Amino acid sequence: MSTLSLFLDVPQAQKLEGSLLKTYKQDDSPNKMFLAYRVCMTSGGQPWVSSVVRKTRLQIAQDPSLNYEYTPVTGMRSFIQACVELLFGKHSRAIAENRVGGVHTVGDSGAFHLGAQFLKTWRQNSQIVYIVSSKKEHHGLIFQDMGFTVHEHCFWDSKQLCMDPNVLLNVVKQAPRGCVFVIGNIGNCKLTKCQWPKLIAIMKKKQIFPFFDISYQGLSTGDPEEDTRFLEYFVSGGFEFFCSQSLSRNFGIYDEGVGVLVVVALNNQILLCVLSQLMNCALALWLNPPTSGARIVTSILCNPALQEAWKQSLKEIVENIMLTKEKVKEKLRLLGTPGSWDHITNQSGSHSYLGLDYSQVEYLVKKKHIYIPKNSRINFTCINACNIDYITESINEAVLFTKASENCLQKFLE
Amino acid sequence: MSTLSLFLDVPQAQKLEGSLLKTYKQDDSPNKMFLAYRVCMTSGGQPWVSSVVRKTRLQIAQDPSLNYEYTPVTGMRSFIQACVELLFGKHSRAIAENRVGGVHTVGDSGAFHLGAQFLKTWRQNSQIVYIVSSKKEHHGLIFQDMGFTVHEHCFWDSKQLCMDPNVLLNVVKQAPRGCVFVIGNIGNCKLTKCQWPKLIAIMKKKQIFPFFDISYQGLSTGDPEEDTRFLEYFVSGGFEFFCSQSLSRNFGIYDEGVGVLVVVALNNQILLCVLSQLMNCALALWLNPPTSGARIVTSILCNPALQEAWKQSLKEIVENIMLTKEKVKEKLRLLGTPGSWDHITNQSGSHSYLGLDYSQVEYLVKKKHIYIPKNSRINFTCINACNIDYITESINEAVLFTKASENCLQKFLE
Repeated sequence: MSTLSLFLDVPQAQKLEGSLLKTYKQDDSPNKMFLAYRVCMTSGGQPWVSSVVRKTRLQIAQDPSLNYEYTPVTGMRSFIQACVELLFGKHSRAIAENRVGGVHTVGDSGAFHLGAQFLKTWRQNSQIVYIVSSKKEHHGLIFQDMGFTVHEHCFWDSKQLCMDPNVLLNVVKQAPRGCVFVIGNIGNCKLTKCQWPKLIAIMKKKQIFPFFDISYQGLSTGDPEEDTRFLEYFVSGGFEFFCSQSLSRNFGIYDEGVGVLVVVALNNQILLCVLSQLMNCALALWLNPPTSGARIVTSILCNPALQEAWKQSLKEIVENIMLTKEKVKEKLRLLGTPGSWDHITNQSGSHSYLGLDYSQVEYLVKKKHIYIPKNSRINFTCINACNIDYITESINEAVLFTKASENCLQKFLE
Repeated sequence: MSTLSLFLDVPQAQKLEGSLLKTYKQDDSPNKMFLAYRVCMTSGGQPWVSSVVRKTRLQIAQDPSLNYEYTPVTGMRSFIQACVELLFGKHSRAIAENRVGGVHTVGDSGAFHLGAQFLKTWRQNSQIVYIVSSKKEHHGLIFQDMGFTVHEHCFWDSKQLCMDPNVLLNVVKQAPRGCVFVIGNIGNCKLTKCQWPKLIAIMKKKQIFPFFDISYQGLSTGDPEEDTRFLEYFVSGGFEFFCSQSLSRNFGIYDEGVGVLVVVALNNQILLCVLSQLMNCALALWLNPPTSGARIVTSILCNPALQEAWKQSLKEIVENIMLTKEKVKEKLRLLGTPGSWDHITNQSGSHSYLGLDYSQVEYLVKKKHIYIPKNSRINFTCINACNIDYITESINEAVLFTKASENCLQKFLE
């Protein structure tokens, strides 16, 4: 009996990620390098893992008292508690008032998926989402697939070569009442003391629902408390909001995909209702969240000595990033590369814009085998003592080459 | 400025699970016991973990060569390969023909969620799902929430006290063309050599899409190969199908929630299209699946000595289950409890029906503080040398008491 496939109509899906990495892997050049890894790298070119993590992982594996039974759908309670305290500080008023809680989520998308599903059901009058971040975010697709109308905006001003807080302010001004604002990496986009109250006031007046993306707390300034201090504006402003808190990057446990969907409500009663609905969504999404990563994070955060060591490791990696950026800038200055390169050191975090235009990026990829994304946002932890000269010289070449062709074109036109 | 919550309309969600356990926990009786845990328990009353798992977990934690970078969206390739070989056997024709693949999934629900989402999009003409299993399944809700019409049927015949293969045959006969059949625990419902070809023929003719729930391979007969041998009927019958393969129970890593959505397609080209679409769904669901559990499973399955030790541990636990069931039956016989208790030993696996009616269950819960579900399906690994006498005596009492009240009622009516 010959059979026809039930899936004859299913086409190959468009690849959503990884094409740059794929091209890099297929490149035979001995000089090739990839500067767009999502994870922080050590100077030896290996994914960074906080030094306390390895030790903690071993201790957990050796602990005979642990049982590995199913966790509740909401996840490990101690983990959620520790994460929420990391986010808002142990003495946060909202925590004391029992109006902060969370659901243990999975992977880097889990919290967005769960939150989006909740908002889809319970905020039916406002299915418009603005995603404002320092880069193009994956989670736009999550909201889009669920039927939200999605508008995406980027803080990065590629002409002025800086993060522009006015992007956020302007988008908020235009946005309709009651919509959702998914805000990523707001710390990188330094709002002034005057801009904050203005932002808060408009968002409040328009009943905008904030949904913060906290995916590398501590990796921006090196101080986890500093990185999420802005949340206090929203807590004290009487906002209700969600945070997608991911602990993968700041602990270097990328493959554990461990996170929390954090909920801040006006009071405990409302919090419990929201959490109960989220729990039912989580039941259908994964039933029980995996705990390995959560155990590591909890062990570290609940032990003052380990927590201190973890914070120290964050500080070191951020100092290294700043040092690398300084060196890149200095080397470009010494090479006499046209332009100011202050925008490199003005940005915080591992991933920052080089501020190159498309033809310069293409020059680096095609001629120099240095693989960087079209927007020239690279991972500075991929730059180390072995490759910094080649990289800066190549950037210099790319800039000179494209300036030269511009000049040619200019002369030709004159 | 006083503020109204955005979530005033959000009610407390109905609890979907755990009410029996909650009542048990609130019970102050020193005799109380809970016989409905989802996980296998040791004779000491602790969740069972395969002995090789602890060793492997430690080895992994000590391995300095491992990096913990993000895994691809489809998950760990070696893990998927090992799981698929466990499911179909290393020398399966379908594997050799490159038409079996999978996506690494999360938790006990992940594979169903992912599969349901795919079927929702790509089988729009047949959004009817039949769930046939030996018990009420969670995943009914997953399909229902996505808008499928769901019909649920149970193999267990509570009057005849046996698993009835005719349930499946009858439901298949009535079902409309092209619908989806989610089949759980078919091994427990022993189809005869005559019934298998009949079932296959009707399903094939009606283009029914099978979606198997393989959540405790090896814990039914003690032999993993034996437990999934029935899949060969579908492979050789030229079916395309999904399996939700969970590795949590048979390795005793309940809190890792590790699984695979296995896809069998007619050829490699179709397989790749289906996998690419599933990958896009997984991207939105969790982006990167956690790997701790997958690493443990892969290390064990890819090492012949460890695999053998794991299989041995499965054999032991299944032998223990059968021994416990024999003992329960024997004790009831010695107590002179009315009825045949052969149905206890006729069922395989850790969870089996005691075959008590609702009033008998209520007697056990209310009078004897033995917490069992209304359908009397208990976890036999919760019974051990310390509690077996109390349990069997209580069952005897419950049966005698309810028979006595029946007789009274009978006499009263005469």
